[in-house]
Amino acid sequence: MNRDELKKAAAEKAVEQVESGMVVGLGTGSTAAFVIARVGELVAQGTKIIAIPTSERTAQMSRELGIQLGSLAEYPRIDLAIDGADEVERSTLNLIKGLGGALLREKIVAAASKRFVVVVDSEKLVDHLGHHTGVPVEVAQFGWQATAAAIEDIGGRPQLRLREDHAFVTDGGNYILDCRFDVIKDSAELERKLNMTVGVVDNGLFVGRTSQVIVASDTGITVLENDRNPRG
Amino acid sequence: MNRDELKKAAAEKAVEQVESGMVVGLGTGSTAAFVIARVGELVAQGTKIIAIPTSERTAQMSRELGIQLGSLAEYPRIDLAIDGADEVERSTLNLIKGLGGALLREKIVAAASKRFVVVVDSEKLVDHLGHHTGVPVEVAQFGWQATAAAIEDIGGRPQLRLREDHAFVTDGGNYILDCRFDVIKDSAELERKLNMTVGVVDNGLFVGRTSQVIVASDTGITVLENDRNPRG
Repeated sequence: MNRDELKKAAAEKAVEQVESGMVVGLGTGSTAAFVIARVGELVAQGTKIIAIPTSERTAQMSRELGIQLGSLAEYPRIDLAIDGADEVERSTLNLIKGLGGALLREKIVAAASKRFVVVVDSEKLVDHLGHHTGVPVEVAQFGWQATAAAIEDIGGRPQLRLREDHAFVTDGGNYILDCRFDVIKDSAELERKLNMTVGVVDNGLFVGRTSQVIVASDTGITVLENDRNPRG
Repeated sequence: MNRDELKKAAAEKAVEQVESGMVVGLGTGSTAAFVIARVGELVAQGTKIIAIPTSERTAQMSRELGIQLGSLAEYPRIDLAIDGADEVERSTLNLIKGLGGALLREKIVAAASKRFVVVVDSEKLVDHLGHHTGVPVEVAQFGWQATAAAIEDIGGRPQLRLREDHAFVTDGGNYILDCRFDVIKDSAELERKLNMTVGVVDNGLFVGRTSQVIVASDTGITVLENDRNPRG
């Protein structure tokens, strides 16, 4: 199987957990697209679910596949959310997400979900978060330079995310600072420090939120369970 | 002296700390207006400062008085910020702010300031925060109902702030949930819990940020110093 076929197989493994009657959070990105496609097949076969999309792109693809959409206004508690990730820490299943720019919505959906399942290819597994990527930090536009200075004070090297020479603006109207840290030994502590930094809206560290990670690799599909997660 | 004369006297006492060459954060509200007026007098007399305004309203009043404005982009570190507050806890000088809706900008300016001086009338002094008012919590519009449910889980009773039957929208494009809590014994702990709640942009608890409170009351002006504040 090539890489896309492997991702597809992992996505389908995740979607096995979708049952009729569920409210299901749907992520954003190339892996999530395989998830949405498989959910669309189930719906076509008669499975009845309500999907909560994490982006306009996911909403549109869902609509095209006949998946019924709902909002967190109507369904503030989600049964199962399935999403991709940019990095997964092997020992904890903590994540970095948000390279795609939808981190706040993805985190709100993950936080509202009883069960949060992540689908990745094996390249995303790391020993310590921050190995390949920085931590995306969503910040208010007002005074973002002061917020960047405060992030430097806690050891980060923030860089304003650009798109075509202009600051990239999130769905929520905020900026993203991509922040490199020397080594992230304690992601819970760093998440707390970032959240306590005034001007930070949220950050791409997902700590203690993952129920299960489904990994696609050349040797097949592996399932990593988070036994320590109180949400099961 | 009537109440406004007292507020004016307290504001002028605060502005005594403004010196030529300083970058000065200017708050928003009725007490801050007296501060801005006094700063305008100093500037007319030759004191040279750069002011960082916390709202468009404050910016406009400053411009009319000939006060030179700067931004956090140019001046990410502020020497002195002067602002009002909605409640001041006597024993700690911790604050609730944000009834006026500018909490995020006010908090960003306070966080960027070496010294943060608060001017209030004596009615604002309380034994425990939350006595008179709820805590304003600025939240992302997306999924605000799920965020409200999460705030209920930590003991709050959130209510969406309305203006003329529509949700009030902040300068940053977010909503405000006014959250009553039974009793706020540990405001640092509550601030941390609110900031760790996904969907929360920031909240109106200002913990450990106050350098000094200047209180106007019928008996005159009282100055409360925060000896425990490492920022002096």
